[in-house]
Order: sequence, then structure tokens, then C-alpha cells
Amino acid sequence: MTGTGRPEGRPYTDGGGGNANDAKRTQAEMNFREKLEAAWGRSDSMLCVGLDPELTLMPDGYGVDDVAAFNIAIIEATHDLVCAYKPNVAFYEALGPERGYAALRRTLAAIPAHVITLADAKRGDVEHTARAYVRAIYDDLGFDAATVNPYLGRDSVEPWIERADKGAFVVCRTSNPGAPDFQDLPVQPEGGTRPLYEVVAERATSWDRHGNVGLVVGATYPDEMRRLRALCPDTTFLVPGIGAQAGSLEEAVRAGIDARGRGMLISASRGVTYASKGADFAAAARAAAIKLRDEIRACAAAVRA
Amino acid sequence: MTGTGRPEGRPYTDGGGGNANDAKRTQAEMNFREKLEAAWGRSDSMLCVGLDPELTLMPDGYGVDDVAAFNIAIIEATHDLVCAYKPNVAFYEALGPERGYAALRRTLAAIPAHVITLADAKRGDVEHTARAYVRAIYDDLGFDAATVNPYLGRDSVEPWIERADKGAFVVCRTSNPGAPDFQDLPVQPEGGTRPLYEVVAERATSWDRHGNVGLVVGATYPDEMRRLRALCPDTTFLVPGIGAQAGSLEEAVRAGIDARGRGMLISASRGVTYASKGADFAAAARAAAIKLRDEIRACAAAVRA
Repeated sequence: MTGTGRPEGRPYTDGGGGNANDAKRTQAEMNFREKLEAAWGRSDSMLCVGLDPELTLMPDGYGVDDVAAFNIAIIEATHDLVCAYKPNVAFYEALGPERGYAALRRTLAAIPAHVITLADAKRGDVEHTARAYVRAIYDDLGFDAATVNPYLGRDSVEPWIERADKGAFVVCRTSNPGAPDFQDLPVQPEGGTRPLYEVVAERATSWDRHGNVGLVVGATYPDEMRRLRALCPDTTFLVPGIGAQAGSLEEAVRAGIDARGRGMLISASRGVTYASKGADFAAAARAAAIKLRDEIRACAAAVRA
Repeated sequence: MTGTGRPEGRPYTDGGGGNANDAKRTQAEMNFREKLEAAWGRSDSMLCVGLDPELTLMPDGYGVDDVAAFNIAIIEATHDLVCAYKPNVAFYEALGPERGYAALRRTLAAIPAHVITLADAKRGDVEHTARAYVRAIYDDLGFDAATVNPYLGRDSVEPWIERADKGAFVVCRTSNPGAPDFQDLPVQPEGGTRPLYEVVAERATSWDRHGNVGLVVGATYPDEMRRLRALCPDTTFLVPGIGAQAGSLEEAVRAGIDARGRGMLISASRGVTYASKGADFAAAARAAAIKLRDEIRACAAAVRA
């Protein structure tokens, strides 16, 4: 009814259930790329569920002190269906950051070690400050990965990607109304004219030494995603914009999938976590996640066929 | 020895000491622009002190539980010398975000209501998420202003600037090594070719309806700052890069000052707050702040002469 029950939590190593190669190594020994491959393989899913607490959308009777319990119920109901969970830290800070981060920490502890934890934080600051954010997000909270903003350039991104055990998704082409304001500006880096987001993609992936640099690419612009896939054939795309935001899943998968039939973390948030406001919320989340996972699988199969 | 003693704290209105117009109105009734003008006027200072806790730089015997006490001592020693305090939230999150934000909250409570509080957070996310960050930074923590990242475009900035009582400083041209990677790219918005940061400045200030949109402009590139001042004659510049980062104060003031002899928040962090590791740290911070305030005053006077 609510999935496969209580998962084993992050402090423990992956005791099995994946393929033989995964089982031989603890999560701590795997680099980010290996961990991502294992998460895709074990779940056979490119679905990433966003865990973004919004009190007005939570089930009746759930308040600010129930955020972690709500998230844990969602995780128990869906952890076998996803490759990653993506809390957006803004929604935890909005609860009052002390309380919000405490709830986030309890949430993270309930996520099985073989599932990627991705902090949607979109941090971007100079190197010395970026290292402080890295301490918070990678070391203190223990996330596997984070989203980062490219505007301050290479030294602002480097602390997020220099460690092979962690991964960063650089914001590239988003799907909000303001995205074209700067991301689509025609720039001339050397010679030809291209939209800024392509230059961001090219430079950010050129900094990749550990296979741990991804890109955030919104689902609603498949043409842009297709261009980016051509430019960056082996890069993982984090694709928000499925579910609550409109966006054709099939077009996005067709545009963004890589040659191996992977290469995407396709993120849905409210459409899964707030599928019901009733007592059946966890079962409803599981049903919504199964539906999305299966749609993504079917789209991927159609592309490969 | 340590300044003017315990300040009155933010919960109280400004009981006087400013000019007659300020004294008539409570802080809550002033919009951001008026509050900023009053802060400049009352202090006769464009100095902004960054409050960025770094345990290795704090006085001997001060640990993670002493961050708020340390900050409060700095504030008691310097609040009459500054127009603003600028905590960079990264350094609080790095303490463990629950503990760090608790220390930040205690710090903010000690800042006099007439001094601007500026969250150096460089947030940038889609509108719905930006509103969650705004709830955290403006409403829950009570900051007067924040730094924001422009890369996601207008709807990501709008929640920060739509309220006249708050202000946002849009990251425009920073002074870190990676700044040129994207900020200096030649773009062609319509017709002529200009660096991206100029287009950011022009668009961000075009969104300004309440006089509450500022720009972050690093101190180490006075030519760029001069161009930006010509483009945006009435915009407030937040200028980091004085002190710990190299940067000629005189050149920066000459390039960035506005026609009225104001228009800048000139930010120093480590050079003031960590001027001494001894028991005299607060007095040393006061001495460093007086020196910087007076240098800024002298530079401004030289420009106007």
C-alpha cells in the first residue's frame, strides 16, 4: 500500500539488491558518477522526486512540526521508484531556517543510501564563500549533489565539483518566464553567435574532471534541450518542469535522453508529494510516482525503438 | 573603548539621533530607500561591515557557540560607524544551519533598527521558490535587504523588489577570478555589443519601481564600475572587495560615488571583524572601522572637491 516500508536509511551501506558490482562496494567508496549509475540501475528509473514542504498543500492536520514525518512517509512510499530525491532548500528556510533545516536533516536520514540526495539550492558565490556552502550542504547535511548558479564563473563552481564523491548541476536553461532575459541573450564568446546558456553548458562541462558536472535544463523547451544534448552527449541533465509545471514528458525524454538510454534526472515535486490531501497521501504519492516512472520508461523505450 | 555601548536593538523604533525628518517616522513606516538615506545620513558613513563567522579567525577561546556573542560585541563596537551590516549566510550555514541561523537571528536582534541589515545570500530561483526565500530572509529573519542572482531573469528577482520596504542588490560584476567567464561575455541584446554585466545592470534597474534595486559591483574593477555609474546614475552599489580582498579604495570611490556624494555601500569583512585575535578584538574592530570610514569620507570629499 505504501511501498516497501521503512528504508534502511543513509548511515548504512547498501547491503544488496543492486547488481553484483554495486553490492561489492559501500556507498562511501563510490564516486558520484558510480553512485548515480547504480541509482539508475537499481531503480530502473530516471524519476527524481522533489521534497518541497508547503504547509498549504500538506494533508489536513499536518502542520509545520510534521514536515519531516510527512517527508518520511513519502520516502517510505516511493524510495524504490526513484533514482534521487531533490529537496529545494528554500522551502525549508521558509519554515524558519532553524526548524526547517532540522526537518531537512531528519528527512535526509530516512533516504536510503543508494538513492541520490540532491540539494536544490542554486548557490553561487566566490570561491571562499562557496567553500562555506559546500561545508553546509555536502559535509554537514551530507547531500550527494547540489544545484549551483554559474554567473560568478569557474572559481564559484569549482568547490562543488572538485570532489569526485559529490556532484553539481549547473543551472543552464530554466523554464520560468524570465529565463530568456539573460540565458537566451546572443553572445559571441569567440567568433560565432550563440545563446548564453550554450556557452554556460560548454564551459561548465569543460570543467568536468570526475564525470560529476551536470546541467539543469527545464522540460518545457525541448529544442533547447536537444541542442544541449548534442553539445554535451555524456552530461547528466536535471530536468525540472514535469508535473506541476506544464511540459510534455515525451518531448523532453526524446530531446534529453543520452545514447545509453539514461542521462536524465526527471524531477516532479507537487504532482507526486501532494497527490492527495487525505489520509491516503502516501499511497497517492506512490501511485503518482509509479505512473510517472512508467511513463518515463515508456518514453525512453519509444526513443530507443 | 568598545564604541557607544549596547545599541537599542531592532524591535524598537528609532527614538532620535537622526535628523528631524527621520525622528518623526518609525522604521516600520519608512520604505527601503528612505531607510537607506537615513542610515547614510545618521552615520555619515558608507561603510558596511560584513559579519561572516569563521572559527579559525575568531579570538582565542571563541568557538562555535560564541558566534552570536562575538558578533554582538562587534556590533556594540561599530554600530555608530556604519550604514549597514552584511552577514553572508553561507558562513552561518557552514556552522550547521540550525545552529548557524540561530546565531544569525541573535545577531540581527542586536543591530540597531536604523542600521540596514543586508543578507548576502545571492539567491536565485524561479518565482514560486523565490517567494519561499523571501519569506525566510525578509519575513522570518527580518532582513531589510538581500543580494540576488540575476541568471534566472525577471520573475526570479521580482519577489525581492516588489515590496517598497525591502531592497535587493542584484549581482552584476564581481571581482573574483571567474567573474569574466560569463559576466564579461560580449552580448548583442539589440544592436550594439556590450558585456553581459551591463545588460544585467540595465535590465535589473529597469525593473525598479520603488528605488530599491541596487547592484553588486566589485571594488577591484574601477573601469567597469565607472561604466555602470554612467549607465545607472541613481542606483546604489554594494561594493565588496575592500580590505581582505585587494582593491584601491580611492579608485573605487571615485568610480562609484553618485552625484550627491553617496550611492555606495562599501563592504569590509575580515579586515574589520578579525582585526585582532586577542581580548581587544572589539576595540581593534572599532579602530579598523573608524580608519575605513574616515578613508571613505576623505575619498568622497576629494572627489567632490
